Amino acid sequence: MTNQRGAVPHNAPVTVVGLGPMGLALAEALLDRGHPTTVWNRTPAKADGVVTKGAHRVESVAEAVSASPVVIICLKDYETMYGVLGSAADVLPGRVLVNLNSGTPSEAITAAGWAAKNGVAYLDGAIMVPPPLVGHPDSAFLYSGSEEVFSEHRETLASMGAPRFLGADPGLAVLHNTALLGMMYATMNGFMHAAALVGSANVPAVEFADLAINWFMPTVVDSTLLAQAADLDAARYPGDLGTMQMNLNALEHIVRTCVEQGVHADQARHLASIAEQALDAGHRDENYLAVFEVFKKAS
Amino acid sequence: MTNQRGAVPHNAPVTVVGLGPMGLALAEALLDRGHPTTVWNRTPAKADGVVTKGAHRVESVAEAVSASPVVIICLKDYETMYGVLGSAADVLPGRVLVNLNSGTPSEAITAAGWAAKNGVAYLDGAIMVPPPLVGHPDSAFLYSGSEEVFSEHRETLASMGAPRFLGADPGLAVLHNTALLGMMYATMNGFMHAAALVGSANVPAVEFADLAINWFMPTVVDSTLLAQAADLDAARYPGDLGTMQMNLNALEHIVRTCVEQGVHADQARHLASIAEQALDAGHRDENYLAVFEVFKKAS
Repeated sequence: MTNQRGAVPHNAPVTVVGLGPMGLALAEALLDRGHPTTVWNRTPAKADGVVTKGAHRVESVAEAVSASPVVIICLKDYETMYGVLGSAADVLPGRVLVNLNSGTPSEAITAAGWAAKNGVAYLDGAIMVPPPLVGHPDSAFLYSGSEEVFSEHRETLASMGAPRFLGADPGLAVLHNTALLGMMYATMNGFMHAAALVGSANVPAVEFADLAINWFMPTVVDSTLLAQAADLDAARYPGDLGTMQMNLNALEHIVRTCVEQGVHADQARHLASIAEQALDAGHRDENYLAVFEVFKKAS
Repeated sequence: MTNQRGAVPHNAPVTVVGLGPMGLALAEALLDRGHPTTVWNRTPAKADGVVTKGAHRVESVAEAVSASPVVIICLKDYETMYGVLGSAADVLPGRVLVNLNSGTPSEAITAAGWAAKNGVAYLDGAIMVPPPLVGHPDSAFLYSGSEEVFSEHRETLASMGAPRFLGADPGLAVLHNTALLGMMYATMNGFMHAAALVGSANVPAVEFADLAINWFMPTVVDSTLLAQAADLDAARYPGDLGTMQMNLNALEHIVRTCVEQGVHADQARHLASIAEQALDAGHRDENYLAVFEVFKKAS
């Protein structure tokens, strides 16, 4: 099965273990691309929908693992995975596990060690889209761990979305997933708070979104971040175009305006407090990106 | 001068009062586009550079105001403006003031009232780019106040950047400016914190920026915000694809990962605390955008 050299055929058999909303979406995407798909779920009835679409339902985890060279795991967390796969320890050796649970980097690293001890090739992954977008060729799936598994089964992985390999450290996929989600929440909050602030003068969010998202984000914010990312790596924060003190003044102006307009001011206060920490840490005359030094340290 | 009907000629005379880095950039942009440009600054030597490029330097504010139908004000704040223009009260009536000071919406509204009492047409503005980008046709300048002034002098305003009129409320330009800056800081912090988090596993910021800014922001974050802005206006937050409780769980997972990786966790804790406020305010089963309701209220 996987022992042959080179890439496996496009319609390679796949097993999906765990049929929550995401597991079901994965199984459907695999069926759509012509993969013989075996499914298992603790509550078998969850498989009814995909069985009518051609999935093969089995009774035990051992049968599920034995049915395909590649086993996609989509369970609640790593502990659940250990419990479920424990009953199939005999048939694990030689299989490929692609684990799409969410968790922390250390949980992913521990799981890779567990897989090695059980004779299983292991790839850890993170799905960057909600279930309805699974199967779309632009939907990113992040992977880390065994590059050999990634390369050999790339076409199978591509049936679920656009696969991107991040490195041999098995924790990288969930780490990137967590970092991107954190960025998403901060950015969404930034937009929603700004919309509330202009909303205090009866500006509709739809009108503000056109200015903020269609123009300001790409032309000002994103281009600045792309241009200055190399400075973050070099810890180089020249203050000639604006210092931390000037940015703190701007943040305090934002706080005052929020108070004056009667909208939430705590988020702006928190941003100001981070700039103050950067200032106290000796970055007064450096530019705003020196906040990166604050973020590198535990708090 | 401005009493003729219709738009003024492209090379209309302009006065710039205040020659900090931004005022100088404005004067240079106007000179570049062929406007006869008069300048005044409390410290006259600041004008040396633009005088060599053709600007006409005058000794008093009254001379400066008298020299052109349109007077661009670029001073430190509104108080400074009242002080400077107080010495030219006699020559103000009939002039057009375009004030590009930064300040709060109520300061802009007060200034518009002061202008009306002094017989001056008034437009309040906010410059959305740093001095080196002034004069670029893509550099946005936001304006609010007299739409008549905006329309009549649009070509002069366009010599400094792309002018956008936001409405008759004179506070709208500085309000939008403040809101967009707040969004910028939140988004930059979101990116830098995420870069610090993946940096804990030695991922370079430049590599992360490619994934985060070139792919994740436009395809996931921006498109979500654009698609859901109408829901903010309608206060409609259906939780069928994900609830506030699920998002709070995700935020708490981000906090745990930050702690595990030894990076700053307070920003993620603050995001979680805002989601908790939304939850406590009765939005537990609504989607994440119900955070907008928290932001609408003073804190």
